[in-house]
Amino acid sequence: MPGNKAVAYQGPGKVTVEDTDYPEFELKEGPGVNPANVGRKVPHGAIVKAIATNICGSDQHMVRGRTTAPQGLILGHEITGEVVELGRDVEFIKVGDMVSVPFNISCGRCRNCKEGKTGICENVNPDRPGSAYGYVDMGGWPGGQAEYVLVPYADWNLLKFPDREQAMEKILDLAMLSDIFPTGYHGCVTAGVGTGSTVYIAGAGPVGLAAGVSAFLLGAAVVIIGDLNKERLAQARSFGCETVDVSKGDPKDQIEQILGVPEVDCSVDAVGFEARGHGRDAATEQPATVLNTLMEVTRAGGAIGIPGLYVTGDPGASTEAAKVGSLSLRLGLGWAKSHAFFTGQCPVMRYNRQLMMAILHDRVQIAKAVNASPIPLDQAPQGYADFDKGAARKYVLDPHGLLGSRA
Amino acid sequence: MPGNKAVAYQGPGKVTVEDTDYPEFELKEGPGVNPANVGRKVPHGAIVKAIATNICGSDQHMVRGRTTAPQGLILGHEITGEVVELGRDVEFIKVGDMVSVPFNISCGRCRNCKEGKTGICENVNPDRPGSAYGYVDMGGWPGGQAEYVLVPYADWNLLKFPDREQAMEKILDLAMLSDIFPTGYHGCVTAGVGTGSTVYIAGAGPVGLAAGVSAFLLGAAVVIIGDLNKERLAQARSFGCETVDVSKGDPKDQIEQILGVPEVDCSVDAVGFEARGHGRDAATEQPATVLNTLMEVTRAGGAIGIPGLYVTGDPGASTEAAKVGSLSLRLGLGWAKSHAFFTGQCPVMRYNRQLMMAILHDRVQIAKAVNASPIPLDQAPQGYADFDKGAARKYVLDPHGLLGSRA
Amino acid sequence: MPGNKAVAYQGPGKVTVEDTDYPEFELKEGPGVNPANVGRKVPHGAIVKAIATNICGSDQHMVRGRTTAPQGLILGHEITGEVVELGRDVEFIKVGDMVSVPFNISCGRCRNCKEGKTGICENVNPDRPGSAYGYVDMGGWPGGQAEYVLVPYADWNLLKFPDREQAMEKILDLAMLSDIFPTGYHGCVTAGVGTGSTVYIAGAGPVGLAAGVSAFLLGAAVVIIGDLNKERLAQARSFGCETVDVSKGDPKDQIEQILGVPEVDCSVDAVGFEARGHGRDAATEQPATVLNTLMEVTRAGGAIGIPGLYVTGDPGASTEAAKVGSLSLRLGLGWAKSHAFFTGQCPVMRYNRQLMMAILHDRVQIAKAVNASPIPLDQAPQGYADFDKGAARKYVLDPHGLLGSRA
Amino acid sequence: MPGNKAVAYQGPGKVTVEDTDYPEFELKEGPGVNPANVGRKVPHGAIVKAIATNICGSDQHMVRGRTTAPQGLILGHEITGEVVELGRDVEFIKVGDMVSVPFNISCGRCRNCKEGKTGICENVNPDRPGSAYGYVDMGGWPGGQAEYVLVPYADWNLLKFPDREQAMEKILDLAMLSDIFPTGYHGCVTAGVGTGSTVYIAGAGPVGLAAGVSAFLLGAAVVIIGDLNKERLAQARSFGCETVDVSKGDPKDQIEQILGVPEVDCSVDAVGFEARGHGRDAATEQPATVLNTLMEVTRAGGAIGIPGLYVTGDPGASTEAAKVGSLSLRLGLGWAKSHAFFTGQCPVMRYNRQLMMAILHDRVQIAKAVNASPIPLDQAPQGYADFDKGAARKYVLDPHGLLGSRA
Repeated sequence: MPGNKAVAYQGPGKVTVEDTDYPEFELKEGPGVNPANVGRKVPHGAIVKAIATNICGSDQHMVRGRTTAPQGLILGHEITGEVVELGRDVEFIKVGDMVSVPFNISCGRCRNCKEGKTGICENVNPDRPGSAYGYVDMGGWPGGQAEYVLVPYADWNLLKFPDREQAMEKILDLAMLSDIFPTGYHGCVTAGVGTGSTVYIAGAGPVGLAAGVSAFLLGAAVVIIGDLNKERLAQARSFGCETVDVSKGDPKDQIEQILGVPEVDCSVDAVGFEARGHGRDAATEQPATVLNTLMEVTRAGGAIGIPGLYVTGDPGASTEAAKVGSLSLRLGLGWAKSHAFFTGQCPVMRYNRQLMMAILHDRVQIAKAVNASPIPLDQAPQGYADFDKGAARKYVLDPHGLLGSRA
Repeated sequence: MPGNKAVAYQGPGKVTVEDTDYPEFELKEGPGVNPANVGRKVPHGAIVKAIATNICGSDQHMVRGRTTAPQGLILGHEITGEVVELGRDVEFIKVGDMVSVPFNISCGRCRNCKEGKTGICENVNPDRPGSAYGYVDMGGWPGGQAEYVLVPYADWNLLKFPDREQAMEKILDLAMLSDIFPTGYHGCVTAGVGTGSTVYIAGAGPVGLAAGVSAFLLGAAVVIIGDLNKERLAQARSFGCETVDVSKGDPKDQIEQILGVPEVDCSVDAVGFEARGHGRDAATEQPATVLNTLMEVTRAGGAIGIPGLYVTGDPGASTEAAKVGSLSLRLGLGWAKSHAFFTGQCPVMRYNRQLMMAILHDRVQIAKAVNASPIPLDQAPQGYADFDKGAARKYVLDPHGLLGSRA
Repeated sequence: MPGNKAVAYQGPGKVTVEDTDYPEFELKEGPGVNPANVGRKVPHGAIVKAIATNICGSDQHMVRGRTTAPQGLILGHEITGEVVELGRDVEFIKVGDMVSVPFNISCGRCRNCKEGKTGICENVNPDRPGSAYGYVDMGGWPGGQAEYVLVPYADWNLLKFPDREQAMEKILDLAMLSDIFPTGYHGCVTAGVGTGSTVYIAGAGPVGLAAGVSAFLLGAAVVIIGDLNKERLAQARSFGCETVDVSKGDPKDQIEQILGVPEVDCSVDAVGFEARGHGRDAATEQPATVLNTLMEVTRAGGAIGIPGLYVTGDPGASTEAAKVGSLSLRLGLGWAKSHAFFTGQCPVMRYNRQLMMAILHDRVQIAKAVNASPIPLDQAPQGYADFDKGAARKYVLDPHGLLGSRA
Repeated sequence: MPGNKAVAYQGPGKVTVEDTDYPEFELKEGPGVNPANVGRKVPHGAIVKAIATNICGSDQHMVRGRTTAPQGLILGHEITGEVVELGRDVEFIKVGDMVSVPFNISCGRCRNCKEGKTGICENVNPDRPGSAYGYVDMGGWPGGQAEYVLVPYADWNLLKFPDREQAMEKILDLAMLSDIFPTGYHGCVTAGVGTGSTVYIAGAGPVGLAAGVSAFLLGAAVVIIGDLNKERLAQARSFGCETVDVSKGDPKDQIEQILGVPEVDCSVDAVGFEARGHGRDAATEQPATVLNTLMEVTRAGGAIGIPGLYVTGDPGASTEAAKVGSLSLRLGLGWAKSHAFFTGQCPVMRYNRQLMMAILHDRVQIAKAVNASPIPLDQAPQGYADFDKGAARKYVLDPHGLLGSRA
């Protein structure tokens, strides 16, 4: 049995690559594993050889020390790879299948799963609905920034690619199906983006860029992305977005310059709780800034999709209110404009097959849009550091050297 | 030409009944009339003799002095009556028609109206989308707590009752179609109430009670209404609701006693910005209490309908934040539970015909549920006062003595 | 190991009660079992002791010899009972659970199941999407008009009732969750029935009556049911429906007498391919009559729900076209009225939990409405015969004598 | 007052260009004008100078003599132009506005219009819901293949382009907003086309090609169009569609060659009642062929959009059944696959603003895809003849010489 090199959180600002145990069909004790899950049998699981496993902005929340993630937690929830071993109860997935793993872990048997709400499965996280690989307070399922990872309920969770060779040709695009492409798409869908929409997306990180790609795929007429980071804004322009530099002042005015009116039909928050202010306030964290801005720039009757993560506890927050996840929101403004707000994890399974089809038939170039950049697994610490500095890249770890990453 | 007795706001805590001018097919200068609307021709309008014209909780916000309503503003936006005169451009509505007037004024020609979003019509309020009769900052259309009222865009706005005699038999029920019945229903629809739902409704005022009736009409299995006011809670129980006395503590615990679990499928905020705290905090205003509680008691994946009014400015608020309509909301909690939030005026026209059918065919007894109580127009000041004290009644003014009200 | 008494089809017009083998966790060879399914392992299955197991109108199609059902086929797909044994892979369902079994068999792992389309699961019937217990050409899963039945994919398929004692008190109502209540409800939902709708339902058999109950539950203002059978029409009137006697002529005229207009908002075909004509043609089969009538009586813009079964081959049909499932439909009429048409098996799982909640909280009396009538398993042949003669009853077999049926 | 040259139907196979009266704000007696509409005042109307006015496939049904169109009927319902005169009651549309006219005439005041169902307005056609300019049995509103045309309910019906110069630059694209672009789009929307869909469209005429463009705009992965006409198939391939030559046999086999499976997710009937057979039967009319084929090639659970016209009476049909609009449909097959079917006129207003935005922001090239070809108004007879012969062109009449058409 092989070992399993994996990326571990070691404390604020520090990740390392460690030798860990090869997965078994049982959830073992370990950093972050919910005690109620220890010893859980996983005969319905598959072991996936991770061919592409991405670093996510939400990993950064942990690595920056903004959560209570324990030392040694194996990170990673954006996993794409090949099935190498099956639990006895797996019936339809086969060894050798090339697959995408939704970052949400779900059982396929509870009320929420039956309703398609796989982001809040009731059976995988003993603490509350909703789970993910390699994430604090999400049940303790080991992360997939590793050579191998255990995927429970494999028949339900795994999306099989139709053809291995075709999959390897588009592997960097397909690698975005595990999280950011569906997440950005979900933000747009819930915001009501459709044919002819004008859209404002706050944040030009990978999820924001994926939301931009999604908005175009959904038929948007004009897609505007706002950020402080000039490199990321240039990346947004590379595939047709208009951009707003929020360090230069209020998005409203810049939107008016682009559209002739200061409002868009739909908006998406791809920033979340670590938001910074606009203009002169850009250096400070202002967790309610993004949502209050979106209410201002979204037309009456519009909706606001909120894939950006907001948390129930943020020990590192700048205010007491924010430490418990409270934000000072201008709900009165939203109410006057009849806004609707959609929060929460994207239920990846609702979208990943359709987005895979769009990728396989060349209808979308998501990897290029987010600047997917493969790096060896060993360079994960550097990838985390560069991403944290604002690199306009989506880092894709390459545990088995199949992505052509260079050391 | 007759005169027109009408209810006028005179300052905090004070309303009077005044002799005013009979309406013409033009919007005249007057208290609260938007200058850009003065002189506006209304050939598309109808003059409606108000047979039933209700006092609304949102009128109370003005009368309590919580808004910038000007002295002399004619109040009233819940109007039911008979068409007595038509502008030259009215084609389908006829003199003698018995009608319900949606409280939203809308043009039937703008993008929002074409999309069914009549609560945010772009053409009737020069300041912003959305308008109503007799309301501050809503364009200045004179209110309908009066003998007669001008209804613009009559072919579009008016809902005709099929038969006069039948309408008079059920007039108190039909009088609820102008606002609170659709508003409560909209809260439930947006909250996702359907067959078998468990529902929590915050607030047992008329809108909350109407939401309770609506929840049953939509097939809810269990409807729970919370309030501080024991009389109103008794009213809620009168038609099958369970109740939570929020003065006795956290709704969560009481909900658990009722359902066996501390959460409901769907929830509705029928309180709005003048919310008070729970338990020991029940004496003080805590504008974010209701919404934070609803996030707590709504199950993951559920939605929260917010027909309760939140305002952009509240000069009488208890905190600086609340004065500009900002609330400290636990969005982190809502996000973790993938909640969706729906705000804004109910677009009455989306629902009123259907609810009329339910009334006319005896499928619902809304007047009884909200304890509709006709009083003479002259007693409006007393009605306002009693309602403000928490009477478990929906006061229906009876300007022409056709409702059998007693002096 | 006990035996297993079960109802078997023996040829046109003939069913018998036979001693069969107690189920194992494997699909064995037998009458009607698809060869490709023989030997299929079912470790994910549960054995359910059938407490209530109903005779369905679609069983009659087989028993009348209108299909190619083989001799010896074990009938029955409307099963309610207690879990008595579990396959090794069942994780959440427990022995002793009281459950409803959706008549659709589905895997919970294929694309269609993930989309909630459990009526057309891709993995259970080797011939085509869609399967059911005890039904010709549906994969060959043994029927449940028996003492015991094997339910595959138990964690996915079974709906657990919250409490055993409560379940036994309402067992005849809950027994309708396996098929006819959701089926009638699905017909109404797809037809667009909602608050205030006027509805016409063709057919007052159990599905038609269940559609009537569902229409009221969905808020319909007026529910009209049409049939030839006076006893069944009386049953429809017993819970508030209006009725149309199609032996007396065109439904259109009778609808006009009821509503004042000759059209309804929504309509439901609860008859299917064995339809008879109206008026003078009532003695002959006219398979397109129902649908053509529904196009005539449904208002422009309305929809037509078609839960009534239409088949791809009907060897006993009266015309060559009908023998291959072709009907002469007035599509030109439907097109002029912008009608939409919804066909197919009801995906029971989409609705059964919600309807269970409505039953458990006394919001609906489905057993009474359909005149649920328990009879001993041994009397199944008589039940089939009486039902075929048009008894206004829904026969519920009582294999273990727990329903108080009388011999 | 100027005259008004216009295209008139003169009998089977014959159209001429006639001098007619310039429109007034009243509906005058004339060929095809419904007697109940004669003398109808139209103070809410606008007179539009037709800059681009297209020949439609549904005009051909009349010109081929397949309807009861009267001699002298002024044709044309695809109108784009400039407002030159206003009725007294028009409030928001202004003289000089550049506009698209939806082919559906609707009042903006009836129940159906309020529900967005403008294809079945109740107030414009005295015979039945639904109306159009220049069309038999649609109320008698004069057609717009003319220099000038009267548009009733102008504030409601007209879609204003934001800028005149920009509009003239894209006038051939914008000219498709009056009918075929929304109609093709509606076919796709109702068929459920979305991101990643595989789609089969029957018919490569202008509506079929517009459906193909729409499918891509909606995110389809693969769009397959079938027809007999090789020139039209080449046109379909010009913008990325796959094609099926139905003269070469069953679409199912050709679809399997393209997709690897013989079924698509969604399908659209862009042919209608004058369908011809496939393969050897391609020379004969087989009105049910298209729909039966779509049931065969659409996967279980899919939907079928039917924008292609089916009529209630077709005096020229090949069978008695077809003469009354009856088709022999394999509903049994559709039922087994749980298909849904959506018929009727496209409610243009539901989509035209959004599609305009997509055009103005260069997200779609509809004119190129349908090969929009401007010709002088005088050449309308030749255009009709060429179109009838199967030219792969969408003829756009140019009454004022503003489109650069050549004689």
